[in-house]
Amino acid sequence: MNITAIHERTLPLASSMRNAVIDFSTMTVSVVAVVTDVIRDGRPVTGYGFNSNGRYAQGGIIRERFAPRLLGAAPGALADADGANLDPFKCLAVMMTNEKPGGHGERSVAAGTLDMAFWDIVAKIEDKPLWRLLADRYNGGAADPLVNTYAAGGYYHPGKGLEALQDELRGYLDLGFTSCKIKVGGAPMDEDLRRIEAAIDVLGDGSRLAVDANGGFDLATAIKFQQAIQPYGLKWYEEPVEPLDFEAHAELAASAVTPLATGENLFSCVDTRNFARHAGFDPQRDFLQVDPVLSYGLAEYLGIIEMLRGYGWSTRRLIPHGGHLFGMHIAAGLQLYGMESYPHVFDPYGKYARGMTLGDGKVDLPSLPGIGYEDVPGVDELMRALAG
Amino acid sequence: MNITAIHERTLPLASSMRNAVIDFSTMTVSVVAVVTDVIRDGRPVTGYGFNSNGRYAQGGIIRERFAPRLLGAAPGALADADGANLDPFKCLAVMMTNEKPGGHGERSVAAGTLDMAFWDIVAKIEDKPLWRLLADRYNGGAADPLVNTYAAGGYYHPGKGLEALQDELRGYLDLGFTSCKIKVGGAPMDEDLRRIEAAIDVLGDGSRLAVDANGGFDLATAIKFQQAIQPYGLKWYEEPVEPLDFEAHAELAASAVTPLATGENLFSCVDTRNFARHAGFDPQRDFLQVDPVLSYGLAEYLGIIEMLRGYGWSTRRLIPHGGHLFGMHIAAGLQLYGMESYPHVFDPYGKYARGMTLGDGKVDLPSLPGIGYEDVPGVDELMRALAG
Repeated sequence: MNITAIHERTLPLASSMRNAVIDFSTMTVSVVAVVTDVIRDGRPVTGYGFNSNGRYAQGGIIRERFAPRLLGAAPGALADADGANLDPFKCLAVMMTNEKPGGHGERSVAAGTLDMAFWDIVAKIEDKPLWRLLADRYNGGAADPLVNTYAAGGYYHPGKGLEALQDELRGYLDLGFTSCKIKVGGAPMDEDLRRIEAAIDVLGDGSRLAVDANGGFDLATAIKFQQAIQPYGLKWYEEPVEPLDFEAHAELAASAVTPLATGENLFSCVDTRNFARHAGFDPQRDFLQVDPVLSYGLAEYLGIIEMLRGYGWSTRRLIPHGGHLFGMHIAAGLQLYGMESYPHVFDPYGKYARGMTLGDGKVDLPSLPGIGYEDVPGVDELMRALAG
Repeated sequence: MNITAIHERTLPLASSMRNAVIDFSTMTVSVVAVVTDVIRDGRPVTGYGFNSNGRYAQGGIIRERFAPRLLGAAPGALADADGANLDPFKCLAVMMTNEKPGGHGERSVAAGTLDMAFWDIVAKIEDKPLWRLLADRYNGGAADPLVNTYAAGGYYHPGKGLEALQDELRGYLDLGFTSCKIKVGGAPMDEDLRRIEAAIDVLGDGSRLAVDANGGFDLATAIKFQQAIQPYGLKWYEEPVEPLDFEAHAELAASAVTPLATGENLFSCVDTRNFARHAGFDPQRDFLQVDPVLSYGLAEYLGIIEMLRGYGWSTRRLIPHGGHLFGMHIAAGLQLYGMESYPHVFDPYGKYARGMTLGDGKVDLPSLPGIGYEDVPGVDELMRALAG
């Protein structure tokens, strides 16, 4: 089998929200359709993907480097051993032909965006939902039928006060969430502590609330904040400092009581390995949130899981960043801790598929073959338009 | 003052050469012209830049993110305190607006490409060659009128044998070089050792030869190679292993006699700081080769120098990667160890300006204001065409 066409469109992901370091009003997203020469029901099997939030569209790298390499690959060079399906690991190797080591950003997003479409194809050709395929291939058949999730929100908006924050969180509880995450570090510490207390008032217990500083604190402030939030018994304290400052993480980790979490800005296996080696995180207490789509795709992420195992990390301490359906499949099929959701924030890319249900903080998964974007309102039309 | 236009063109950098990990036949380069509203001799002052070799063109990021931010900056927001000249640090901050931390690759190249043009502008407006401006601003006025350089070559080509390698190196000696660097790791070790011996035969002494594995060895092979080359007394042993595997570097560094060198795949200050902290390099013995153009530009590189000073590194242990005239100015004006040259390899981007002379392994610098690409054969026409 071969890939016959790759379509990319760069679309706005406009939003008025803001975290501690950036606003999202000019954020863009690459949406891709990868067409194969495998015919099912009279049509070529086509996979869909898009890049995870927080990083910009990658049309340049996809069009100038990755698509030509994939489309120019020798016949069968992207297929698995019996030639019947795509091999995403071979696809990654072909994309990375004549790419130097190091410099893991942007191209890692471009690769991950296409990788999402590759796995969609693989599961469609095997006629299974992706989570089932992943469980069968990589997890001895075991899967979580319900995936832990939480509502990632609590962004700063101009004029948004404590009541608006509480209303937002109540809305998440009404949807069936039991845990939430809010941003910190974008306001003075006193104000952030009042936001945390207001959030706990709604959620009922600190263990249902995570906070996310998006790397905005310097180490001294991060330590002060860590001490200040300790009495609340929060779920975790996310990205307190510059995400690549391993030494600062090690200093925080040495005295942490509240679990620490980070990883959405580690974009490769080698970067994550450095984090595991040098940042002092405790695999029994802390969480890693590497985003499979931003970091060369699931083909790389499976290697990251294997690597982390060697440093004492169980899959149950991994929570992919991104809040998309692809990550839900990964969390279910590989039995991770869970996956985040961004209700209304990154619509339609963060939406569940029609028929998915959320209750008691857990979500079930679609039964369509592949990822199931054909059943996600708003994404379905985009994908159809892209494939032509 | 303001930036009024930014032009980018993506051009091939085609070459049949190959190192241990990639071939360069499809490599591309972004060439940029940045036009200002400052008029000199009746024409707007325009700066020129291009990305350093080994990484691809960055037209997508420049056009979609950096150029709109620079061109949309508030009047004067890119200017220095008295408004008369561009401030490259402010330009970097504007380019990085709404960019998340981490993921230092590709965008770091896009930023560095434009940064080269910014410094060209700054020096042209001050009517000084860039090396003199850098010396005056950042080095107490001290500069090296002659810059240490060496010929980086010795690539693998299909059918290239020992005699062709020796002929290549003799050609470099004829040009005025006294030291050379050749690739290793792309052939069996026995063959590489014969290549090293053949090279030393031409150069006269091992101390005149550096070898570069481009990160192609695993740790065990890198250690074996390190032991095998120790008797030759080489100038340095470059990129023995995966450039982000700090632990492997630390293991090599612990028993190194031959100086170690790496850094061309560290693309930010935070990545370089992690290397300084965790990779065990010896600032008295080893070299760092961070490429200012690939890593967010000279504005970031000046911060890297300051950061490294805190870890015991003198500028005399720094050798920028890239082999272009911009790096020569940096090496002269900040009194680095020196700068590499790639005779004939990356022409015209690696060429010296008309009137520059090379002798006894040192090169002088052009006296034109700015970087002086207007005087570099082949680059001059490109730049003129680009500025329109």
